[in-house]
Amino acid sequence: MRRFVIIGRRATASPDFLLEDLPGTGGRIDVLLRCLRAALLVSHGVRRDVIAYVVLLGGPAAPRVLRVDGALAEYLRPDERSLGTLVKKALARAPGGPAFAPATHGLSMASGGLEAVLADLGPMTPYVLEEGGTDIRAAPLDAIDPAFFVGDHLGLDEHTRSSLAATGAVPISVGPLSVHAEDAIAIVANEMDRRR
Amino acid sequence: MRRFVIIGRRATASPDFLLEDLPGTGGRIDVLLRCLRAALLVSHGVRRDVIAYVVLLGGPAAPRVLRVDGALAEYLRPDERSLGTLVKKALARAPGGPAFAPATHGLSMASGGLEAVLADLGPMTPYVLEEGGTDIRAAPLDAIDPAFFVGDHLGLDEHTRSSLAATGAVPISVGPLSVHAEDAIAIVANEMDRRR
Repeated sequence: MRRFVIIGRRATASPDFLLEDLPGTGGRIDVLLRCLRAALLVSHGVRRDVIAYVVLLGGPAAPRVLRVDGALAEYLRPDERSLGTLVKKALARAPGGPAFAPATHGLSMASGGLEAVLADLGPMTPYVLEEGGTDIRAAPLDAIDPAFFVGDHLGLDEHTRSSLAATGAVPISVGPLSVHAEDAIAIVANEMDRRR
Repeated sequence: MRRFVIIGRRATASPDFLLEDLPGTGGRIDVLLRCLRAALLVSHGVRRDVIAYVVLLGGPAAPRVLRVDGALAEYLRPDERSLGTLVKKALARAPGGPAFAPATHGLSMASGGLEAVLADLGPMTPYVLEEGGTDIRAAPLDAIDPAFFVGDHLGLDEHTRSSLAATGAVPISVGPLSVHAEDAIAIVANEMDRRR
């Protein structure tokens, strides 16, 4: 199972953001919504072998993690507003608690930050997307159970970096330019599709 | 100069779409907005060496073409609603006419469809993104003046295909799966960045 873990440093963990202003009221949750699309959707379908985690570190309800399971997800549409609506519902409906609990349509929520994700992942090989890492085309990659950790527009903070280093995460770079997180995910997905 | 030409078969050529429902009222103009982001934006910046054309073939004002020149563009933000607002303004303000005329902030408009783009492109090597084409990693690519033609979620129609074939456009594939147009653009951009 391919996993993407996207870390939103200021993205709001409560459902009070406005669909009319996702970037401004959601702590740039728009970045994470686009990452969900890139991780989970292909032409006319959902990648059933992908799980995406979004770590929400912003606002008074933080930290919380949203998990979207491609095998179970329904009503995933690619536009930001539709994805925002779905995430808003999940944030509103999910019971609190450190274990992932179903919220709506294949979306689950847990309290906690990166540690909640690490506890849920099970066996996997961790990679962290980072400028200066090994070029993804040259890197050996676990084709079965990879987990890719991705920062948002602010990048990963020091604490997250050291937590990931402690798991043995391998720094991987997707190319010579620093690109948006969703584009990095598209490039990783392409590489993994090619290796299958 | 790197060019991307994205063809929206039903995307509306008039500014009367709703920002609250881009997919439903804009003939899936949301797809094209995401393509603009993927073509033009990188982390904290605009690709100044890219021009993106969006061919709008839907609604009573069609056909019209929007051109976004990375070298001139201002206020390009990555979220769909902001990009939709910018495109809406350009569609409302642009004078009609077969030549590209400035509308707003580095965005220009022309009446016409693919032929208006072909007349504007100048010297270039054309490529068409297509399943079954030559793998982009194995293809010789013009590093200076490539123009990549991309279909939306409906793919390219027969008339467009034959017009592109007449220009000698080389079919290029980005990978083993059929991915969203914006992801295909991200993968092409990555390949071009690597060849620079």
